[in-house]
Amino acid sequence: MNGEIMCEEIDTTIQSLGDPTIDSPLLATTRFVEESERVLIDSSLNAVNACLRDRKEIPSFECAGPRKKIFFDPSKTKCGVVTCGGLCPGINDVIRGIVHELYFIYRVENIYGIPYGLQGFIPRYRHPFIDLTPSFVENIHELGGTVLGSSRGSQDIGEIVDAIERVNLNIVFFIGGDGTLKAASAVAREMLARGYTGSVIAIPKTIDNDISFVSQTFGFDTAVEESRKVIQCAHVESRGAPCGIGLVKLMGRDSGFIAANAALACRDANFVLVPEEDFDLEGEKGFLATLERRLKARGHAVVVVAEGAGQKFFGDLQQQTDPSGNVKKGDIGLFLKERIEEYFAARQLQVNLKYIDPSYVIRSIVANASDSIFCGFLAQMAVHAGMSGKTDMLIGLWNNVYVHIPIELSVRERKKIDINGPLWMSVKESTGQPTMKNE
Amino acid sequence: MNGEIMCEEIDTTIQSLGDPTIDSPLLATTRFVEESERVLIDSSLNAVNACLRDRKEIPSFECAGPRKKIFFDPSKTKCGVVTCGGLCPGINDVIRGIVHELYFIYRVENIYGIPYGLQGFIPRYRHPFIDLTPSFVENIHELGGTVLGSSRGSQDIGEIVDAIERVNLNIVFFIGGDGTLKAASAVAREMLARGYTGSVIAIPKTIDNDISFVSQTFGFDTAVEESRKVIQCAHVESRGAPCGIGLVKLMGRDSGFIAANAALACRDANFVLVPEEDFDLEGEKGFLATLERRLKARGHAVVVVAEGAGQKFFGDLQQQTDPSGNVKKGDIGLFLKERIEEYFAARQLQVNLKYIDPSYVIRSIVANASDSIFCGFLAQMAVHAGMSGKTDMLIGLWNNVYVHIPIELSVRERKKIDINGPLWMSVKESTGQPTMKNE
Amino acid sequence: MNGEIMCEEIDTTIQSLGDPTIDSPLLATTRFVEESERVLIDSSLNAVNACLRDRKEIPSFECAGPRKKIFFDPSKTKCGVVTCGGLCPGINDVIRGIVHELYFIYRVENIYGIPYGLQGFIPRYRHPFIDLTPSFVENIHELGGTVLGSSRGSQDIGEIVDAIERVNLNIVFFIGGDGTLKAASAVAREMLARGYTGSVIAIPKTIDNDISFVSQTFGFDTAVEESRKVIQCAHVESRGAPCGIGLVKLMGRDSGFIAANAALACRDANFVLVPEEDFDLEGEKGFLATLERRLKARGHAVVVVAEGAGQKFFGDLQQQTDPSGNVKKGDIGLFLKERIEEYFAARQLQVNLKYIDPSYVIRSIVANASDSIFCGFLAQMAVHAGMSGKTDMLIGLWNNVYVHIPIELSVRERKKIDINGPLWMSVKESTGQPTMKNE
Amino acid sequence: MNGEIMCEEIDTTIQSLGDPTIDSPLLATTRFVEESERVLIDSSLNAVNACLRDRKEIPSFECAGPRKKIFFDPSKTKCGVVTCGGLCPGINDVIRGIVHELYFIYRVENIYGIPYGLQGFIPRYRHPFIDLTPSFVENIHELGGTVLGSSRGSQDIGEIVDAIERVNLNIVFFIGGDGTLKAASAVAREMLARGYTGSVIAIPKTIDNDISFVSQTFGFDTAVEESRKVIQCAHVESRGAPCGIGLVKLMGRDSGFIAANAALACRDANFVLVPEEDFDLEGEKGFLATLERRLKARGHAVVVVAEGAGQKFFGDLQQQTDPSGNVKKGDIGLFLKERIEEYFAARQLQVNLKYIDPSYVIRSIVANASDSIFCGFLAQMAVHAGMSGKTDMLIGLWNNVYVHIPIELSVRERKKIDINGPLWMSVKESTGQPTMKNE
Repeated sequence: MNGEIMCEEIDTTIQSLGDPTIDSPLLATTRFVEESERVLIDSSLNAVNACLRDRKEIPSFECAGPRKKIFFDPSKTKCGVVTCGGLCPGINDVIRGIVHELYFIYRVENIYGIPYGLQGFIPRYRHPFIDLTPSFVENIHELGGTVLGSSRGSQDIGEIVDAIERVNLNIVFFIGGDGTLKAASAVAREMLARGYTGSVIAIPKTIDNDISFVSQTFGFDTAVEESRKVIQCAHVESRGAPCGIGLVKLMGRDSGFIAANAALACRDANFVLVPEEDFDLEGEKGFLATLERRLKARGHAVVVVAEGAGQKFFGDLQQQTDPSGNVKKGDIGLFLKERIEEYFAARQLQVNLKYIDPSYVIRSIVANASDSIFCGFLAQMAVHAGMSGKTDMLIGLWNNVYVHIPIELSVRERKKIDINGPLWMSVKESTGQPTMKNE
Repeated sequence: MNGEIMCEEIDTTIQSLGDPTIDSPLLATTRFVEESERVLIDSSLNAVNACLRDRKEIPSFECAGPRKKIFFDPSKTKCGVVTCGGLCPGINDVIRGIVHELYFIYRVENIYGIPYGLQGFIPRYRHPFIDLTPSFVENIHELGGTVLGSSRGSQDIGEIVDAIERVNLNIVFFIGGDGTLKAASAVAREMLARGYTGSVIAIPKTIDNDISFVSQTFGFDTAVEESRKVIQCAHVESRGAPCGIGLVKLMGRDSGFIAANAALACRDANFVLVPEEDFDLEGEKGFLATLERRLKARGHAVVVVAEGAGQKFFGDLQQQTDPSGNVKKGDIGLFLKERIEEYFAARQLQVNLKYIDPSYVIRSIVANASDSIFCGFLAQMAVHAGMSGKTDMLIGLWNNVYVHIPIELSVRERKKIDINGPLWMSVKESTGQPTMKNE
Repeated sequence: MNGEIMCEEIDTTIQSLGDPTIDSPLLATTRFVEESERVLIDSSLNAVNACLRDRKEIPSFECAGPRKKIFFDPSKTKCGVVTCGGLCPGINDVIRGIVHELYFIYRVENIYGIPYGLQGFIPRYRHPFIDLTPSFVENIHELGGTVLGSSRGSQDIGEIVDAIERVNLNIVFFIGGDGTLKAASAVAREMLARGYTGSVIAIPKTIDNDISFVSQTFGFDTAVEESRKVIQCAHVESRGAPCGIGLVKLMGRDSGFIAANAALACRDANFVLVPEEDFDLEGEKGFLATLERRLKARGHAVVVVAEGAGQKFFGDLQQQTDPSGNVKKGDIGLFLKERIEEYFAARQLQVNLKYIDPSYVIRSIVANASDSIFCGFLAQMAVHAGMSGKTDMLIGLWNNVYVHIPIELSVRERKKIDINGPLWMSVKESTGQPTMKNE
Repeated sequence: MNGEIMCEEIDTTIQSLGDPTIDSPLLATTRFVEESERVLIDSSLNAVNACLRDRKEIPSFECAGPRKKIFFDPSKTKCGVVTCGGLCPGINDVIRGIVHELYFIYRVENIYGIPYGLQGFIPRYRHPFIDLTPSFVENIHELGGTVLGSSRGSQDIGEIVDAIERVNLNIVFFIGGDGTLKAASAVAREMLARGYTGSVIAIPKTIDNDISFVSQTFGFDTAVEESRKVIQCAHVESRGAPCGIGLVKLMGRDSGFIAANAALACRDANFVLVPEEDFDLEGEKGFLATLERRLKARGHAVVVVAEGAGQKFFGDLQQQTDPSGNVKKGDIGLFLKERIEEYFAARQLQVNLKYIDPSYVIRSIVANASDSIFCGFLAQMAVHAGMSGKTDMLIGLWNNVYVHIPIELSVRERKKIDINGPLWMSVKESTGQPTMKNE
């Protein structure tokens, strides 16, 4: 963290459905987490000293983990799990982890999968709930995607809560991105408003890794690993033809974390274009002229572009939204492909551009070991939180500690690459790319 | 083989530059291959009996391998290697194998890489030749692509032979596809016409595996392996959304071998569309209605299409050619994507189609073990053939034996899937797809 | 094949239970295989001419494939599948292929898995049969090993046939190696002797690829791929320490095919020791002195040894057998490790030897694409053969054609590397290793 | 961290060679790190409050990163890099990162590789220094191991410093484990004692991840990924035979992090034995009886054992040390293999135990994407530290921030799994294994 967090702005209080009074069924030897255990949001000494100097509270998050007293009686608890939005490596690991923790550790036996995202709550879609038993989930972590199916787009919050009430779900686990987190929070608040005692626990799922106050989201590490291979292919293609250009579009609607990390992981990229750093196409310092200089000097080039980069080139489009409520993006990959080809054709320079858009091949693979372990912990922590009666919160990893974060806080703004920070500095060192702005 | 080869049509005689009179530098213990060693083209007993009955010669190919007497004096021999056309796993293995066999076994020390395909012969492109030493090639098999670079398109045959004469190359190894093989044959004939004593040995490179009289081309096995992974991703995507369709376009301009084999390797495909089997889009039995039925029955579908399938839908386009002289293909992948989406939109059925075009990610990877071994043998056999003074031929694998095949014979027509044979029968069994023709 | 097959020795007649009189349920468009279709055993022109000259029959195998008339009535047919011996990539693909072909194509619905190899037939082991339905086998090809379990060792043939009679199995598919093939043949003959109308079809499973008249066994290609990676690791280890030696023991009890091919696939091995080529340890030309010279020249060495190499060093051991009836082998890997360390210690030369024995990590992985396709065809061909009433035979791939081979013929002797042939010549070229015999 | 750190014990002061007075050659836009920037060692709110209550200083580490003023004049600086101990994925990434940062960013041109670990400093070993240029390191990150070679064991500190003085190295980067860190610290102190102005910067390398105050060491993530695959193989083997046991020995001399994480990553392990948790073999609650119960209930079992587990069974051995000064370990893998087989043989229960010891196959592979990125940052931070004149320190990652840690502090004790913490709790949940102690 960058020390710029202003202490006053952050309310990190987690909503609770009531006092947990039931003894946890976990082993007595378990190291239970006390409600008072918190981890600093900003662990820099300067931040702490600033708070002390200003006599302000030091901002911190509540620690996740098993509680000695829980809120829901396991023998009577019914849980639901829903997965929304685009695919991401590890979803099945999370589902499996939730089922195992509920079933084997808390002895909760009624667990339902809500199929095809929020659609699954709405009767007119006629998607029957899925019985999530240990045997159903036994090998699902060896499959990519989500066994529950997913869908984009919101649904009426009232109808969702109606469904929850009808089935009498006590805890609903939402696995999804920005839009889903907002919907989950609305569901939590509607339940409270109706006086329905139900917990909403979210596990943030965004392959782009752009959730605030969440160091890393599951699936991101796997996506970077796979993206590295694709950049290596682009590099081979670029060297395989005279004036070869390998152009790779990677995921990253608002944040270029995948592009930046994948570029650092293989070091073959010569240009990394991300939403966080503005660039010009035309002009002496613009991208096209810079690319031309690179090609003349070295005979080939690899360009990695995050899907959200260069959106200023699309003008009006930015008003439209997709079913998930995301602002529509222009296809920067195809756009650059055309503009590069035009540019060199106009100068009668032959280039051989190979364009690769690997998103579906990346997001549908199985989680790597690191993500798989991570998903297991997220699932356990989510179950602990739900059983203890917390609601309207998500599980995050912060300063290497699993924490509870109010959903509202996390969706307030997207996490972005700090273009003056070490990650972006390293990318620029590694690629050697200049700042491509004409003033 | 299908037994339909007519005996009279095939001239399998290999051109020779003259009598080989020099003792091979290979070890005395080597099992040298006699000129009389031949392998039957059609090894079915019926084919042999038919020839005997008709008192015709049994068609056969000359066996490849080291000869006791060679034509070129290793200490004075200069060789060239050129790689043309699209990338394919294993090219660097072949280059390395040629250099190793020439250098360490025959003690030929002057070996040049001609850069960027046929362009490399033409002075105005200013691509300097590359010195191919053992140390230059030491680790190149661990890289995808071709270290020599490649290019598409033909060049003037006279200019190519001028270059060969100028540098005084005795053997030129051409690694390339259909167009390159034709150019190589023209070069061989032009050298003979000029009275220049030079050998042209080709190693067929086509990821599509569509060279006649060549059981399998290098890189194909690797491509199938990688394509399998992509189909699995498409399968995951198709199951991850309501009415999900995973559409994968695989390589295969004229022959659907990659699509068919990849489908058999993972068994997740529900439709495999190849150039060899005509299909309709519209109508009760057409592809679109069949797809609709599948979706209604199972909720998702995986469609694999070879790039050369369904070209009848593009009409005029089929007159145009690309720089390599290949007939231009309409983009059947994007075409199907649009037509499927239109079709379901017109019926107000929501589908979630994910389109994947992985070619560059497949063709640029490193050869798998099987292809790597295969490339090593192809390279050795090519060197044996060149050193013994053969020309205008290619190295093929036929009935598990490496053989010499006249280039002209091999390029006469493309190898295609026999749609009544076991490969295609298996694909149809595995997918369950019907014949999609309205009469 | 090497042309040395003597025509008179080979009886390739396949046993049949009787005339097939039932119409095949396959589509009328299927290309059915005629009983008269055969493929030459030796497809070299010289072999054919020799037979013609001597007026002998040209030896050939019966082609596999669907027959127009079948012997068993699918609606009444009961089948069993048993997997024996060590694990091998692709077993589950074969099981799945058999079930699919029987169930979906022939409409045979009673298919049983016999658990844990031949033990599964014997009541006292109390292993219940497994119902092999399409849903049971749906994803098994994504798992290594065998879902049926396996075991080593023979069981009483009479008891096995008792079990087959009791359950009334019409076709039993045996998937196993040398010992299993012998047992399968004995079972087939015992059934005929008892007058019980049952078919025995074997699919040879040996990761060593050492079955005569079978070009390649399933799993071998995958094993070579994986072995390549291990040799690369050994190479890295050997270079990572002063006087580093990477010693890898690979599978290959009687034949060094895996060792030889893996060495060709990665080209990092400096010594490949196989059962087919005798070598000495001691003496000027022996392995140890040769290794010492290599180390002094280059500072590191990679040694690949097949498990059956150098058995002469173990003397008496060769009388003993394991439960599968295989002659017990001395552990040549550990033996070489000790002898190398002793040798250099005695000369006060420090070496850093890293010994790797990866067998279990190789044989338990999932089949690669090529093996997976291969297994699918083997399964289909086995079902066609069984349904048509053949027995006491195995499915092989010979000259690229699937064929029926009498079990007895195939187990008569092990297939071995021809140490004068191209494979071994290539290995010696690639490694540069001399013949390590003191006269 | 567990909040138990006592504030008074920790001296985190980093030694410095003198005031940095030279302007950094980095871009003016770089975000330079101030000397005052520090990160809390324990970021829990309770720990901070305890310090405040006791009026003690809050313990913190100095942040790593580029400094505005540096100590060494790049044009005159000479650097050395040495790699010691066992192989670990990512060493070459670190070497490459150091060379790139020194050469391209600081413009230091004299960089030497010291070959084969500490031996490389000592003249009598006659290992010549390696010139580390950008072209030498270009592709080394695609190779496993270390291009410099390594060796175990200490060398005379005086001789090492003699060599450093002779070559006049200003900064020496030590990449190694516990023993190497101690040697590096001794070298740093000896240089200070001699008044020689040289900096020693260490990058901890231990695949076991057991360095105190270092959240994770490079290569660990890759090792876990690869170990997961091995456990999956063991699982397949265990299910492939009656009463199958897959026994895997993983790295972890003093800490079971690899075993624990790999078990969580694949969830197929039924027993994980680590040095941190004592267990008995015999008795009702001991490991052997527990294993027997598992086998009787489920028919197979997977046992993962860290190499340092169960050392109490080896008695005397624990007095001996290897050349690196590590206490010699008994081979717990082979020991358990024998004891398990004896145990079941004594009870006349047949078990099929497959033992896998994959260490060399794991430690010699190429770093995965995550480790590769990590190594790049470690290298950059090490160069920043060295150029700014710090010494006797290592680069660690702590609370997601790269920090400077005094070597002495880090080697004081090994990092171990907290057997009451969430990692071990998760392992026990996932395996279901009880505490295997009688009492």
